[in-house]
Amino acid sequence: MAQIPLKGKLTSENDLLAAELRDEFRENKIFSLNLVSSPGSGKTSLLEKTLAALGDKLEMGLIAGDVQTENDANRLIQAGGKMVRPIVTNGACHLDAKMIMRVLPEFNLNRLDVLFIENVGNLVCPSSFDLGEDMKVVLISTTEGDDKPLKYPAMFRRSSLMIINKIDLLGLSDFDLDRVKKHARQINANIEIIELSCRTEVGMESWFNWLTGKIREGCPSR
Amino acid sequence: MAQIPLKGKLTSENDLLAAELRDEFRENKIFSLNLVSSPGSGKTSLLEKTLAALGDKLEMGLIAGDVQTENDANRLIQAGGKMVRPIVTNGACHLDAKMIMRVLPEFNLNRLDVLFIENVGNLVCPSSFDLGEDMKVVLISTTEGDDKPLKYPAMFRRSSLMIINKIDLLGLSDFDLDRVKKHARQINANIEIIELSCRTEVGMESWFNWLTGKIREGCPSR
Repeated sequence: MAQIPLKGKLTSENDLLAAELRDEFRENKIFSLNLVSSPGSGKTSLLEKTLAALGDKLEMGLIAGDVQTENDANRLIQAGGKMVRPIVTNGACHLDAKMIMRVLPEFNLNRLDVLFIENVGNLVCPSSFDLGEDMKVVLISTTEGDDKPLKYPAMFRRSSLMIINKIDLLGLSDFDLDRVKKHARQINANIEIIELSCRTEVGMESWFNWLTGKIREGCPSR
Repeated sequence: MAQIPLKGKLTSENDLLAAELRDEFRENKIFSLNLVSSPGSGKTSLLEKTLAALGDKLEMGLIAGDVQTENDANRLIQAGGKMVRPIVTNGACHLDAKMIMRVLPEFNLNRLDVLFIENVGNLVCPSSFDLGEDMKVVLISTTEGDDKPLKYPAMFRRSSLMIINKIDLLGLSDFDLDRVKKHARQINANIEIIELSCRTEVGMESWFNWLTGKIREGCPSR
């Protein structure tokens, strides 16, 4: 079992760098979110809609992590993102603090209100790597099955907010809204929950209000 | 970069064990499939329907890998699976050959026609770990976005068959069937493709025919 000590070592190296990042975000009064989910749950779509709705009101920095391609970063630029940086992990299943550290000098940090870090689409690996963020936000879509919080508990335990996306497709599968909430709260009693559809825009106001509210409060780290 | 040599070492240890598994499957004339996908693409649903349709005709062994919970294994037993074993990875993002090795003695190998290994729901990590299977089968659902073969190329490159699931939900998102096929073939010119819906059962016959055809041909390893 050679993997475990090394993983421990890497995680603590990562934790040191994440602590530096966290200090940097706090000094610059940046609210930072680490967006995690399965592939295709709608992280990029959520950010596209957020840029369209709040792009004039908030200075947003966006980091788009992907195993391969810069497609997501290009979508965010297309959607009006002015400060967007891709990170291509070349096969790695998650972002880590060192990768964030490397792109951070390209941002004008003292201008940012919020930094969105869109992680690799993966419900396992990204849960173990602190990126210095204020909060993790986990997305789950109604087409993925309502058992996911139980099957990938670390991710839901470490997230402050669960966004249930694609509620326009409710009723077209066995996905049960009450059940997914029950499962999420079973894993994490304090998790906040917002239901929305990036496609039809139903519920998007709740997300915008949550986000602007947190920034207004200077929450949680400042 | 301490991670790379260790990963190389682990992979080659894994390759040795996978080669042993492959020999064992061949000796016993078992057609073995490693099912991979994002969380919630329908691997378990596909196997449930396969058990219902072919359970009387084929002796099926099923290994259900999960980060946490034995839910999938229980679903497969419920669906009539007589030889089902769960593997709970306790946080690991993929199955490896050693885990398969450990549960294999619980199967009556000389009776099996086919062994399905349902991997952890993850489009990254499982691509790097050979489990001795004859083929990888990758599932993608129409709600995940048609860009996934480009964004997770290793998985699609190493799969022999791509099953496009949830075709009953086509038209309810931007997912384009031609585009996903084009992207998959761009990564892997030889990939076979089947479209179906586990829910409405449209297209299931193509999958059953593909599977029974491969077993009849003694394909590919025997």
